[in-house]
Amino acid sequence: MPRQVTAFSNATVKRLRSLRDKKHRREEGLFLAEGLRIVAEARDSGMLPEIVAFSPEGARHPLAAEIIAATETAGGEAIETSPDILAKMSGKDNPQMLLGAYRQPASALDRIDRATAPLWIVAQALRDPGNIGTILRTGDAVGAGGLILIDDCADPYSVEAVRASMGAVFTQQVASAQWEEFLPWLRSGEGQLVGTSLTATDDYLEADYRRPCFLLIGNEQQGLPEGYEAECDLLVKIPMAGRADSLNAAVAAAVMAFTIKASWR
Amino acid sequence: MPRQVTAFSNATVKRLRSLRDKKHRREEGLFLAEGLRIVAEARDSGMLPEIVAFSPEGARHPLAAEIIAATETAGGEAIETSPDILAKMSGKDNPQMLLGAYRQPASALDRIDRATAPLWIVAQALRDPGNIGTILRTGDAVGAGGLILIDDCADPYSVEAVRASMGAVFTQQVASAQWEEFLPWLRSGEGQLVGTSLTATDDYLEADYRRPCFLLIGNEQQGLPEGYEAECDLLVKIPMAGRADSLNAAVAAAVMAFTIKASWR
Repeated sequence: MPRQVTAFSNATVKRLRSLRDKKHRREEGLFLAEGLRIVAEARDSGMLPEIVAFSPEGARHPLAAEIIAATETAGGEAIETSPDILAKMSGKDNPQMLLGAYRQPASALDRIDRATAPLWIVAQALRDPGNIGTILRTGDAVGAGGLILIDDCADPYSVEAVRASMGAVFTQQVASAQWEEFLPWLRSGEGQLVGTSLTATDDYLEADYRRPCFLLIGNEQQGLPEGYEAECDLLVKIPMAGRADSLNAAVAAAVMAFTIKASWR
Repeated sequence: MPRQVTAFSNATVKRLRSLRDKKHRREEGLFLAEGLRIVAEARDSGMLPEIVAFSPEGARHPLAAEIIAATETAGGEAIETSPDILAKMSGKDNPQMLLGAYRQPASALDRIDRATAPLWIVAQALRDPGNIGTILRTGDAVGAGGLILIDDCADPYSVEAVRASMGAVFTQQVASAQWEEFLPWLRSGEGQLVGTSLTATDDYLEADYRRPCFLLIGNEQQGLPEGYEAECDLLVKIPMAGRADSLNAAVAAAVMAFTIKASWR
């Protein structure tokens, strides 16, 4: 039976709230996902929260009730609480009717089986959690296998990234590695490393993309370091018509990913 | 000569700070743009700020100094101030070396000359200023003429939207209109209205896009209202490979815009 919790000082409430901080997420190995849509997406992908918190509205909703019951059956904790307390946990004025704390999957590169998908997105030093979540969402839509985060990226399990992913954080594999680990791993098997560059001569629409393709996206401000570009098997250029010389990182990832996928039809 | 201003209570400082609020932006008809890169972009597009505020570092920078001088020559106001005060104005901990307050251009639909560009992006009820800025940036990159904001959208002149536009707010035309005004305007001349829909049967890669093309992007949560879809001359589907049934609005705009442009090569 779910417990009723009405105090901000309750230990579980404090624990869930603490997951908005990266330090606590790392210590606990958990992350927050809010809203019935994403929590149902997670369940359909085989994942239940270790802790679920919900409002009276959530308790009455058939699908939410089903997920709450399944969480308890699986040994998880369920607390019914007020919208005010849910708002504190999620940092939003209008909280969703439920939120879950999920175990972060292991992020080691060797968990990635490149044969399971034709396309993998590789992001280097991305600082905006919204961009990381948006790239996960795009990866899901385009049939990528997952996202490999290189060097010092924003946390893919932050509330902002999870929200922007619209549930894709549960369907895309996520790995983290330094470039020095990534490169030998990449070269230990088949795979074409594709980067975009202003100085490339190959047009992105006419290039020969091969499977498995690893699409490398650089930092929002600096783009890719020169040495990383030099390691690419293919460098392509997206022509820019206006005054700007670059695209938003999540936009560049999407334009390239959909173009690569289209080239295989 | 620029004035030295060191007090948070200074009238110009307070006026610039107030432009972070939509109400004051509307009353004053001004908006803020921060950073040398964007301010230089504006100057190159023929626009100078009415007020420029800069740090001692800005005063020493040759390009910044040139823009500051040009602003004064054109009758604008220039104030040299502290990084602390610049931080207060921009709402950022690490302020840029200068920022400018610019006149908002008129936003009436009849200012748009559709013959000047093959592609126009039309966004309906977009709520995220970051999405609006990102779409402006994409529009610039893809050679669109501008962005038409339909119904109740976020403010394209908010600090967040201007920042995400990376200067494209100065190169793209921006108009605002209700759907009831937009539709007769659209039909008063040539133009193909293109929407994306999950229920469309035409694949987005195989459709026949015509110039001038008006690409219609719907609200982040709801997508396009049914009646708006019904008005489209062409409804296309972007196939979704994963569990998700939609893309981020700025991503959808970019994938469509680059696909439309590619189809004309």
